[in-house]
Amino acid sequence: MTKGLHYTVNPLLGRVAAPPIAEAHGWIKGRDFPADKPLIDVCQAVPGYSPPPAMTDHLAGIIGDPATSRYTDIEGMPLLREALAADITRVYGGKLSAGNVLITAGCNQAYCLTTLSLAKAGEEIILPLPYYFNYQMWLDMQGIRAKHVAFRPDNGGVPDLDEITAAIGPATRALLIISPNNPTGSVYSPDVLRRFYQLAKSRGIALILDETYRDFMPHDDAPHDLFQDPDWPGTLIHLYSFSKVFCLTGYRVGALVGAPALVEEVGKAMDTVAICAPRIGQLAAIRGLNALSDWRRSNTLLMRDRLKALQSAPSRNDLGYELISAGAYFAYVRHPHRGQSAAEVARRLVEQQNLLALPGAMFGPDQEDYLRVAFANVEKDWMPEIAARLAADAAS
Amino acid sequence: MTKGLHYTVNPLLGRVAAPPIAEAHGWIKGRDFPADKPLIDVCQAVPGYSPPPAMTDHLAGIIGDPATSRYTDIEGMPLLREALAADITRVYGGKLSAGNVLITAGCNQAYCLTTLSLAKAGEEIILPLPYYFNYQMWLDMQGIRAKHVAFRPDNGGVPDLDEITAAIGPATRALLIISPNNPTGSVYSPDVLRRFYQLAKSRGIALILDETYRDFMPHDDAPHDLFQDPDWPGTLIHLYSFSKVFCLTGYRVGALVGAPALVEEVGKAMDTVAICAPRIGQLAAIRGLNALSDWRRSNTLLMRDRLKALQSAPSRNDLGYELISAGAYFAYVRHPHRGQSAAEVARRLVEQQNLLALPGAMFGPDQEDYLRVAFANVEKDWMPEIAARLAADAAS
Repeated sequence: MTKGLHYTVNPLLGRVAAPPIAEAHGWIKGRDFPADKPLIDVCQAVPGYSPPPAMTDHLAGIIGDPATSRYTDIEGMPLLREALAADITRVYGGKLSAGNVLITAGCNQAYCLTTLSLAKAGEEIILPLPYYFNYQMWLDMQGIRAKHVAFRPDNGGVPDLDEITAAIGPATRALLIISPNNPTGSVYSPDVLRRFYQLAKSRGIALILDETYRDFMPHDDAPHDLFQDPDWPGTLIHLYSFSKVFCLTGYRVGALVGAPALVEEVGKAMDTVAICAPRIGQLAAIRGLNALSDWRRSNTLLMRDRLKALQSAPSRNDLGYELISAGAYFAYVRHPHRGQSAAEVARRLVEQQNLLALPGAMFGPDQEDYLRVAFANVEKDWMPEIAARLAADAAS
Repeated sequence: MTKGLHYTVNPLLGRVAAPPIAEAHGWIKGRDFPADKPLIDVCQAVPGYSPPPAMTDHLAGIIGDPATSRYTDIEGMPLLREALAADITRVYGGKLSAGNVLITAGCNQAYCLTTLSLAKAGEEIILPLPYYFNYQMWLDMQGIRAKHVAFRPDNGGVPDLDEITAAIGPATRALLIISPNNPTGSVYSPDVLRRFYQLAKSRGIALILDETYRDFMPHDDAPHDLFQDPDWPGTLIHLYSFSKVFCLTGYRVGALVGAPALVEEVGKAMDTVAICAPRIGQLAAIRGLNALSDWRRSNTLLMRDRLKALQSAPSRNDLGYELISAGAYFAYVRHPHRGQSAAEVARRLVEQQNLLALPGAMFGPDQEDYLRVAFANVEKDWMPEIAARLAADAAS
């Protein structure tokens, strides 16, 4: 029994480890960092920029409207659902409408409610390694089994189709793919995504495609052409976040995109867990999609510059640290200290180099050799400094 | 298989009925109501007032601060956690601190994460009849069994202690009590609540006490003295909402209050489902608790006036409708049409009398004779009109 409690805690939840980001923040709690070697925090994906006055002035102007304080429809504001459907059509082609969209309080919620809508305790969802830890935590506390597929560092982190195929069993309800990937930053090609989609379709399971970081692709090509298949709603569930590109993390607004029949099912879960996403966040997202495309574009380009700066920082071989993959927002690096745990390396990096990155082991089994670097948080001029601090650790 | 989907939907969710409020709103969709007999909407608990300029001007002033757009701690902003702990201490006595509080995106979320933290699929939670439908929906989709206890209209809606005792089995993890009650409006006495608390404690289960409507008690006495028991965190979990009294429904901010060990467990679920409650809503709640107590008090008194106006509206016997219970926010009435379903009566009330109330059957089995009236939504001058429309239906 848990300390001080006369009742028992759900053992499925009790076994889940503490949230990694909070744990990592705990490592630096109370520490002061010197001006000549400040903390570089690349542990959590948080935009390094602020919302523009064009956004916040707009919100300040409407916050006194009594309607702003009220619930929205469970599925979200029609204007936002329409705007996102139009945005996806613009980027991916195909035909979507508001009925394909459900607005959630952040993309994590979109994932939780989607998986809840597909699988019950005892069933399975395929989660390739390394995984986004919150996604594993949720399945664990729901009693849904996460079936892992091996990490392929030799293939830029893209999981193997045959291994995924072999992992699908009678209790499998969905394949979860994140592209651009968290934690690896890897951007999967349209061809790869199409093969995953066809596999899911042929096996009667859903393809949950988390594209939270799609605004930060390293090029302007469409991420995939799946929305152009008129039959996409039968298989594909797309997840999106307004948090990063529109700098709305604290407002909690994300979305899922799928069949209207799925939207209806998820709506029941949304109603119980949240009633609706916060209206002010939805109003901010509408403003972003409809009136701030130049600013959104500038963030896309800013992140590309940061990626280039990271990639052209002093060569990996000199560093001892190896860049396995780097794309949208994240890089995944292999540390040179074989035999040392990822946590040991990460703790030393923050203690001695004032660089806070997350140990790969937080992203699943067999990740002790890796670290995740959320490089997008820091300005491009700092990329050589990140490389230098990693090099100093390699030499230590 | 669901229409248009090549994958299967979780049957636990599939069996859950559509959200009742959305269904009720569907009944009036596209309808125009005449000026001489406007719609009286008493279906959803939504404050009939707006947030004051003292709240919205404050928010407008801080919305441009870059920090406003950022995540908070998973458990919520320390200032808000402290302010709520202090507020509870002021109202109930006892000693609480920020470590007892976790801020959620609304009270529904506090309930969902609390029950998830206590029970897994196949276990049980006791839900007296009539229940708040969202609470039943969540248990259903989680595969947690809701064990019902009979409605006691003869006892003002307060469930029977012996029946609750008899319902506790080896798989029972919690007793859920709502006071003031939704849907009945019934305010349970401190004595009754203490007996429920002692029962839960003696049987090693949690007492989840949802006090969403505690700001609308018909008197100024403390709702109960359970927080004065130094051992309260071992058994009691208090749920609260900032939505109603501070008119923040659309901002999504609520809370749970319990043992620090519980806060830690729920924090894992909060992290996955929401990361954190929206910061702007938390800032609004801080403002409300710390600087708007006069306004809060005025809302309390406003609701008391509405309750009194409802209670002194033309006598029930004349109406044919019987007031079973009425307290904070809600009244629960027995319609005079034996043999007609509650839905039939509710549909006729909105079609012929332009009065939108919810059928009791939405709140569980054996409720066909009842309707819920969220009277707090409408100004006190309208109470005689509500009574008149019920009377007209009784005579029809």
